Amino acid sequence: MQVYTGDGKGKTSAAFGLALRAVGRGLKVYVIQFIKGGFDYGELYAVKNLPNLELKAFGHGKFITQVPPDEEDVELAKEAFTLAKQVVKSGKYDVIILDEINVAIHLGLLDLNEVIELIKNKPKGVELVLTGRHARSEIIENADLVTEMKEIKHPYKKGVKPRKGIEY
Amino acid sequence: MQVYTGDGKGKTSAAFGLALRAVGRGLKVYVIQFIKGGFDYGELYAVKNLPNLELKAFGHGKFITQVPPDEEDVELAKEAFTLAKQVVKSGKYDVIILDEINVAIHLGLLDLNEVIELIKNKPKGVELVLTGRHARSEIIENADLVTEMKEIKHPYKKGVKPRKGIEY
Repeated sequence: MQVYTGDGKGKTSAAFGLALRAVGRGLKVYVIQFIKGGFDYGELYAVKNLPNLELKAFGHGKFITQVPPDEEDVELAKEAFTLAKQVVKSGKYDVIILDEINVAIHLGLLDLNEVIELIKNKPKGVELVLTGRHARSEIIENADLVTEMKEIKHPYKKGVKPRKGIEY
Repeated sequence: MQVYTGDGKGKTSAAFGLALRAVGRGLKVYVIQFIKGGFDYGELYAVKNLPNLELKAFGHGKFITQVPPDEEDVELAKEAFTLAKQVVKSGKYDVIILDEINVAIHLGLLDLNEVIELIKNKPKGVELVLTGRHARSEIIENADLVTEMKEIKHPYKKGVKPRKGIEY
C-alpha cells in the first residue's frame, strides 16, 4: 500500500504515472477520485486511450472549504467509498488508486476506521494507492511506501494562473 | 519549468502523470530519459497507446555507481542532451520531460551551465520538467515549481523486491 501526501505538487500525477506503468504491463487499474470531479481536466481525456484503466470521479466542481462540509459532499464521499470497497473486493483490479482520500478523511467525510479496515482486508496482490495531503498517522502506519511531496516553490504564489493541460 | 527531486518515490511517475494530463488535452509531449533505459519497464509499453507522446531513453540497463562514470555513460548523456536541445528548439512540443537529468548533472555526465542555458533560452510556452534526486540549487533557482519527494517509508528497506508493473 502506497501513500502520496504533503503540500507539494505531484501526488495525483504520481498516482497517474503509476497507473500508466501498470497498464503498460497489462495490469488492470481503477482510479476513484474523492472530492474531485464535476469539472474538466486533462486526465479524463487521456484515460480513454488506455485499455484497462477505469476512472470515476466523485465531486461537484467546487473546493470544500467549510467544516463541517455540506451534506452533498458527505454523500458523494460515501458513494465513492462504497465503490472503492466493491472494487477492492471484486478481485478484478491489480492497482486501485483512491485519489484525495486523505483529504476526504481529513474533512470528516469518511470514517478513518472504515478506511483502515479496507486497507487491512484487501486481497493480497492488490496494490492500493492513497493520495492527498493531511494523511493520518494511522494511514501511514499501515502503508508500505510513503512519500511526502514537499512544496519548495510554487508559481501560484507568484500569481500565475493554472494552465489547461499543465495544471488541469 | 518544474522540478521533481528528493529521495522519495514518485518523481518519474509524477512526470508521466503530467504527460498523461497534457496529451489528454491534445498537447504534444516528449520524454527524454537520462541514464535510464536498456531494460524493460512498464512505461515503454503504455506510451504506445498515447498519441502525441514520444519517449526516448538513453541508458544501458545498469546503475551508474562509480565516479567518474564510464565513457559510455558520458556519451549516452551527451546524446540525450543533444536531443533535448533539438526538441526544445523545434517548437513542436508543449511539454518536454528530462527525466533523471538532475542525476546526470550530479554524476558529472552533463555540464550544469549548458542545462541552465537550455532552461533560460527555451521558447515561451514550452513547459520543461526536470526530475531526479540531487537537483542543483542553480536548477531550483531557475524553476517556477519545485517539489521535493521525501521518503517517509520504503518497502525496499524491508527487503521487498521491485514488482513488475508496480515498481518498473
